[in-house]
Amino acid sequence: MRTPTDPSTPGEAGDPFANDPVFIAHEGGKLGVVATKPLAGREDLALLYTPGVAKVSAAIAADARLAERYTSKRHTVAVVTDGTAVLGLGNIGPLAALPVMEGKAVLFKEFGGLDAVPLCLETGTVDELVEAIARLAPGFGGINLEDISAPRCFDIEDKLARRLPIPVFHDDQHGTAIVVLAGLINGCRVVGKDLADLRIVISGAGAAGIAIANLLHEVGVADVVVCDSRGILGPDRRDISGHKARVAAWSNPRQLTGPIGKALIGAEVLIGVSGGTIEETDVAAMAPDAMIFALANPTPEVHPDIAGRYAAIVATGRSDFPNQINNVLAFPGIFRGALDAGARAITTAMKIAAARAIADLVDEPTSDAIVPSVFDPRVAPRVASIVAALS
Amino acid sequence: MRTPTDPSTPGEAGDPFANDPVFIAHEGGKLGVVATKPLAGREDLALLYTPGVAKVSAAIAADARLAERYTSKRHTVAVVTDGTAVLGLGNIGPLAALPVMEGKAVLFKEFGGLDAVPLCLETGTVDELVEAIARLAPGFGGINLEDISAPRCFDIEDKLARRLPIPVFHDDQHGTAIVVLAGLINGCRVVGKDLADLRIVISGAGAAGIAIANLLHEVGVADVVVCDSRGILGPDRRDISGHKARVAAWSNPRQLTGPIGKALIGAEVLIGVSGGTIEETDVAAMAPDAMIFALANPTPEVHPDIAGRYAAIVATGRSDFPNQINNVLAFPGIFRGALDAGARAITTAMKIAAARAIADLVDEPTSDAIVPSVFDPRVAPRVASIVAALS
Repeated sequence: MRTPTDPSTPGEAGDPFANDPVFIAHEGGKLGVVATKPLAGREDLALLYTPGVAKVSAAIAADARLAERYTSKRHTVAVVTDGTAVLGLGNIGPLAALPVMEGKAVLFKEFGGLDAVPLCLETGTVDELVEAIARLAPGFGGINLEDISAPRCFDIEDKLARRLPIPVFHDDQHGTAIVVLAGLINGCRVVGKDLADLRIVISGAGAAGIAIANLLHEVGVADVVVCDSRGILGPDRRDISGHKARVAAWSNPRQLTGPIGKALIGAEVLIGVSGGTIEETDVAAMAPDAMIFALANPTPEVHPDIAGRYAAIVATGRSDFPNQINNVLAFPGIFRGALDAGARAITTAMKIAAARAIADLVDEPTSDAIVPSVFDPRVAPRVASIVAALS
Repeated sequence: MRTPTDPSTPGEAGDPFANDPVFIAHEGGKLGVVATKPLAGREDLALLYTPGVAKVSAAIAADARLAERYTSKRHTVAVVTDGTAVLGLGNIGPLAALPVMEGKAVLFKEFGGLDAVPLCLETGTVDELVEAIARLAPGFGGINLEDISAPRCFDIEDKLARRLPIPVFHDDQHGTAIVVLAGLINGCRVVGKDLADLRIVISGAGAAGIAIANLLHEVGVADVVVCDSRGILGPDRRDISGHKARVAAWSNPRQLTGPIGKALIGAEVLIGVSGGTIEETDVAAMAPDAMIFALANPTPEVHPDIAGRYAAIVATGRSDFPNQINNVLAFPGIFRGALDAGARAITTAMKIAAARAIADLVDEPTSDAIVPSVFDPRVAPRVASIVAALS
């Protein structure tokens, strides 16, 4: 039988979506599952299903490593969300998150050649989600966590990574951090500065902000200041705990306090991952040849036109401005490399090497080209090979 | 990037599987995930992923029914196991069950046009499994439970069916029961007996045995006797509980006790779903024009050659004998019909109607042809349309 792709009644009178190209493109969903081996008759059935398949199952029961070779596990990734932090839409629940997860799976296939399965979970406590994800993990080569709200996402990832023998990677954290780092590496080449010496201000202490801060710390940036909606994470902040408190402990070496404007005075980099707004007067106080990555989508924290008045390099999350910081530069290659090599985790070394590999694919960075195009076909294979080599 | 299909090192010296056609057919697994919409450039990316997808997610958040139309949910089935009762192999665990679940997904696609995702869960208590399956359900149109051991499978299915608004169907129970019923309907036509009047003995009180007994009860067969490894479920059995006890309460109207041989004296039908052996002397005591369905795989409870000495109709689970009782005649159409119609459950009426529809596809049943071929292309659409009509 053919797959049903249009089970409903499109185009009926008064249908508000009938003429919207986005909804037309989504009719029947975006994913299918296919048999990769022919099933033409009884002989194939006896090989691929009973009785033949029993030999394969028995062999894997005797030696679990054979699953890498005789099942789809090694090229299949679970894209797992609970729908609590979907794009800029917030907590819209697992079902409404499904179109985003399907889109993510399309990207996994298109850019990484990997088979990704959306799994949209009813939300629950950290431990309930860890339990559910760990229980469904055996058939997957890796777990891509997606759009899970902070601070729960940190504990969920930490606990799963400790528990499972396969890579667990929260893309909103690490995918963003890797591509931001790639952009900063090339931004430094353009403006002639040294990454480790930069004064960097991060606006936003959610999944992306914390992960970017931690990765910059790992590569040796000494002066990182992180701000949340209440201002700088500094010595006066008695209201923070968990990952924010841990970042506060090592960051902000000049022990600044107050609103983000205080941190931006003389800062060389502003990374916006907050969804809020940053005032032009604050941006105006940054150092010469500043870099502004205003990554909120669809509305950057600082409009690129305003940012451009004060910064030598402006990046956004949008495809209609130069320098799009897009996770798709990282996650397909990261997972492909890790799965190809049978890695049990995505390490910090892999993340840093991936960022360098992405940066290196831009031969001559300019202020309008600090990262490769998301459609540059060299990116995922290069990232994959670096990650595999470090496995 | 291309999908990795052969990540390991096949054919190396001493590889015990290198020349086995079953293992060769399983190299790299049997499933892939594909994008059903083209992703050719930035415009497609903006429609299928950000920013476009946000409109679809927001619309579904406002009206969950839109997920039927704008996601893959409606044509996607979760094939869920914990690997505790896999084929005749027993409790081999979730990873070793994966090849079987992949094969099942291939059949869902080939015969039902449905996209099925294998989910092999670490096992746990009934409530832990119910919790995990319920939590992952939102993105799926239906749940096909598979190879979960009895008696846990009964409670898991019951609890999930009560909790979830989508069809939940344990194929080892109901798929088998439906096809057995189809075979009996046509068997009765061949031998000129009335189904409701048959004396039927079921050997095996696991998932399939209990479900067959219950379905026969629903269609009005008065004299059903179920046996487990200790003998007839009768008035002397103080050692049974749960589903066995419930079956014992309504079955066995003549209140037989003792070994299966007692039940087979004068019986008109023997249905073997036990994996054990039934003695020729016991079979020899059955009524004239008996039917023997010896469904254990790969070794039937009674060899077809021996069964043929005493029975007018012999069926097995094997493809190399006539009358193969194969679930693939039922589950693809059952799910396709239920999902097409948006059914919230698979009802008893649907199961009975499906069995009748399968039986009716054999124009002139003979002792060697009581069920259609599994490759008869009319079966799944016919079953689907009957099930959809009852939704």
